Amino acid sequence: MKVSQYLVKKLVEYKVTDVFGIPGGVILDFIYELDKDENIDVHLSYHEQAAAYAACGYAQRSGRLGVAYATKGPGVTNMMTAIAEAYYDSLPVLYITAHSQKALRRELRIEEEQEMDHVRLVRDITKYAKRIDAVGEVAEAVNAGCRAAVSGRKGPVLLDFSARILKSEIEFPGEHEGKPDSADHEAPDVCINNILTSLRESARPVFLLGDGVRLSKTEETIAKLSEKMDIPMLSSRFSQDIVGGHENYFGYIGSHGLRYSNFILSKTDCIISFGNRMAFQTESESFKPIVEGAKIIRLDIDEQELQRDIPGSSGYRVDLKELIPELVQTAVPRKSFEWLRICHKLKDELKDYDMNPAIMKLSCLIDMLNEDETLVCDIGNNELLVSRAYAVSGNGKNLMHSKAFKTVGSAIGKAIGAYYASRKRVMCIAGDQGMQFNIQELQYISSNQLPIVIVICNNNASEMLKDSERKQGYTYELHTTLNSGYSHPNFKKIADAYGIKYMAARPSADGTIEMLDNEPQIIEIFLDGQCGIQQHLPKGYPCQMFLPQISKDLYSYLDNL
Amino acid sequence: MKVSQYLVKKLVEYKVTDVFGIPGGVILDFIYELDKDENIDVHLSYHEQAAAYAACGYAQRSGRLGVAYATKGPGVTNMMTAIAEAYYDSLPVLYITAHSQKALRRELRIEEEQEMDHVRLVRDITKYAKRIDAVGEVAEAVNAGCRAAVSGRKGPVLLDFSARILKSEIEFPGEHEGKPDSADHEAPDVCINNILTSLRESARPVFLLGDGVRLSKTEETIAKLSEKMDIPMLSSRFSQDIVGGHENYFGYIGSHGLRYSNFILSKTDCIISFGNRMAFQTESESFKPIVEGAKIIRLDIDEQELQRDIPGSSGYRVDLKELIPELVQTAVPRKSFEWLRICHKLKDELKDYDMNPAIMKLSCLIDMLNEDETLVCDIGNNELLVSRAYAVSGNGKNLMHSKAFKTVGSAIGKAIGAYYASRKRVMCIAGDQGMQFNIQELQYISSNQLPIVIVICNNNASEMLKDSERKQGYTYELHTTLNSGYSHPNFKKIADAYGIKYMAARPSADGTIEMLDNEPQIIEIFLDGQCGIQQHLPKGYPCQMFLPQISKDLYSYLDNL
Repeated sequence: MKVSQYLVKKLVEYKVTDVFGIPGGVILDFIYELDKDENIDVHLSYHEQAAAYAACGYAQRSGRLGVAYATKGPGVTNMMTAIAEAYYDSLPVLYITAHSQKALRRELRIEEEQEMDHVRLVRDITKYAKRIDAVGEVAEAVNAGCRAAVSGRKGPVLLDFSARILKSEIEFPGEHEGKPDSADHEAPDVCINNILTSLRESARPVFLLGDGVRLSKTEETIAKLSEKMDIPMLSSRFSQDIVGGHENYFGYIGSHGLRYSNFILSKTDCIISFGNRMAFQTESESFKPIVEGAKIIRLDIDEQELQRDIPGSSGYRVDLKELIPELVQTAVPRKSFEWLRICHKLKDELKDYDMNPAIMKLSCLIDMLNEDETLVCDIGNNELLVSRAYAVSGNGKNLMHSKAFKTVGSAIGKAIGAYYASRKRVMCIAGDQGMQFNIQELQYISSNQLPIVIVICNNNASEMLKDSERKQGYTYELHTTLNSGYSHPNFKKIADAYGIKYMAARPSADGTIEMLDNEPQIIEIFLDGQCGIQQHLPKGYPCQMFLPQISKDLYSYLDNL
Repeated sequence: MKVSQYLVKKLVEYKVTDVFGIPGGVILDFIYELDKDENIDVHLSYHEQAAAYAACGYAQRSGRLGVAYATKGPGVTNMMTAIAEAYYDSLPVLYITAHSQKALRRELRIEEEQEMDHVRLVRDITKYAKRIDAVGEVAEAVNAGCRAAVSGRKGPVLLDFSARILKSEIEFPGEHEGKPDSADHEAPDVCINNILTSLRESARPVFLLGDGVRLSKTEETIAKLSEKMDIPMLSSRFSQDIVGGHENYFGYIGSHGLRYSNFILSKTDCIISFGNRMAFQTESESFKPIVEGAKIIRLDIDEQELQRDIPGSSGYRVDLKELIPELVQTAVPRKSFEWLRICHKLKDELKDYDMNPAIMKLSCLIDMLNEDETLVCDIGNNELLVSRAYAVSGNGKNLMHSKAFKTVGSAIGKAIGAYYASRKRVMCIAGDQGMQFNIQELQYISSNQLPIVIVICNNNASEMLKDSERKQGYTYELHTTLNSGYSHPNFKKIADAYGIKYMAARPSADGTIEMLDNEPQIIEIFLDGQCGIQQHLPKGYPCQMFLPQISKDLYSYLDNL
């Protein structure tokens, strides 16, 4: 068979069902082979950036390998941001690219049009990247690449084929050598003992969940462990959907965290961190006392993560998939329910603070989604609103954020990928600025009539940056508001130009929104400038002492629980 | 003064008038300083890619330093394609970025949100790139960076500042140490002798002009040299505007060249290549006999370029700015006009071939531009149409292509930059697919009411790729036509959504088009599928023997001239 066919066969082996990209001369053979295969659909994007995001969204939603391809030169550089996104958020994505030039002559600025060294370009933001110029290199590179993407701490891989090689013959070397490695983890015994001892000695332990739980698909077993041991679970903001509706789950922490979650965190004496990189401001006055006062055990699949400096913590390189089931078996129930009772008290007292009409409106919209449907958030103030709205009513819905790279404009591409990963309705939420970055993909959504509901949180501003301007002490706004150089198109007319149904909404208005379930829709929410995130944690304040403050009496009552 | 102020002062020294970007927290100080300076305007784009293209367009149109900035992480990766564009097309562009993290820990996948090593990322596609973490490094890096961008073979530079450093104090070390280096060129004597001797010995010499002439600003002196010596000038397609209207200029060569230009090339016995990298297919059957049969002298400022293998040629590393004036002084007029007469004959006989209604319509539109206004072309079949239309009527108008990197979707951003470089009307021509890549920038054009006329050559297809599919032998279309997965929005409604005036045109229809001269406009030309580039050079044919063929009699008459 041809190398192109071999490659397609490999993707099928990895259960890939959809591939995204924009064709170009050097990679035509591959996409025609994709098109011929009955297991895979190949999709045309309108900017390679969106194709590469779609592969991220596909990987994030399915947990399987996401795949995007691009032609040489600008096709590849157009994907850079999404490749970095996959790297930072540990998404298993395979980027397939091609070139025509036989050898690279680095001393020459250009030898042939569009030719460049793709591999060197992405080296720092991929787990594995390889230029393939000989048939003999194909099988090893493809297997190593696919394995790297889905193994250990997941991440992006780039395979860059010579166009000539794609059309060359290769013998199919048998199936299934592409299975994930079982990585070289530490023996869990010492780790399990340390965890169980720490939990026995602790009066107020918490499990802190991160996306490692999602990536290792241990959502259910961690919940079981929490139930068996009666230990409350907290998470980072981006992981709030992992055990969302569970009664032992008490929300997300951080400087943008929920009041009750931070309150619970402030009282803990033992944190077991499951696949959470503890990226909240552990060195700030707000969180330092907690981190210093509690026993901390960090569990992560990436050894390098454990070298991040968190004083007094111990860390183990483990695969949660192996560790948590063993913990469930070994653990014994705790004897006191007092701590869980306090957590419930805190949640009950505080959960209704920090709401506003926009959050309530978004929460109504989220309510209208079915379980197992997906919300994809863009970057900006809108994501903070969504996190809060999800905390009110999101249980059961999948939530996708751009977590560590924070790429404005990524949501629309990811929403397309998430749709194909689930073949279920997706809600894509973006601000009026973020919406513009990849607005061209409305064409894809419209022409393929995908059931994607796009919610534009329109506040006529670059709200998060406006906050930065103020915090940094600038006395006037620059490029962040309608009066200072920023603007946006008429989204109702944009919807019309792309042939997408449109509906406007206001946070404070009653009246039901009719959400479509089998075709594209744009819902524009006019935030009217009064629906920002009011709650904030001033520098130096204890992490539970958000502004606006709750009454002194209530605060000291809760603080003394 | 603060480092931000120092940086702005440097830009003013380099006569920068406009800077493009999207703000972010780490780089706020710099853009507020830009905003305060009366010599510089700072502009807000709607995707960093377009900001970075705008800087390319500004540099390409003005010949001065172009500048774009971006915030860390995705801000920088979003600019990658345009940075590569500047590298491939030798455009002097300074990219200014910022970061907040003090030290980079490469072994850790993420330490802080969005933090990465920007410099390593762009190393292969910049002339100079430097991370600046100490005040002591600022002056040297800024001077070295600006110098590198504008000296020798021009190109992009990236300076990546720590946010802290931007706000730190620096002493302004005096002006003007940023002037371009006079690079280490070869003594022109040997070179001049060789050129003059070769020209004396040649019966049919040509000057082959490339963009090096534009970049060295020697358009007028090369024309003088041609006049003094009565030597015809040819160029590559992307340089057809350099001496466009000159009577000794005979068009552009190559496999997409003009029939008469290639005919002239086929008869030459001596090629003096001025800043032209001879990227046409010199090893193909079509061009090899010419390259082997003629004496070739290559003049380039980039030593590496001269090592490109063109058998039998000699090359000199020279600065055309120094060389050409000396040649003008030394050269003596040639005695025979026979060769120029033949060139005119060939042009007269052949210039009306290979036309079609779309080319004629575009040529009418180009006619309506004033001299010194600018045409910016996108990538695809539309650029070939424009090249031909320009050959009919473009004299005096500036023409900008994406030459070596061939970035689809770059024209709209570049058009914005070209406008600010000239403060004159710009026509931006793109296909219906290319138009979609950075369609978000219509918002910039509209909200700032720039006099940019956007011409969409709409053929409902990805025409150039459709050709590739056919040439590579695929029997059906895939993602290139309306029936095979490709589509585009209703551009009339798009214009309305962005508040831009719209007009439709058909190649064969009479009736005048009213072209606006002081506000944005979209003109959509419906090509109706019959206005492709018919003329082509089949593999193995002599370079002057395009299909469709001219009559045998005429061909052999012209061939025997």
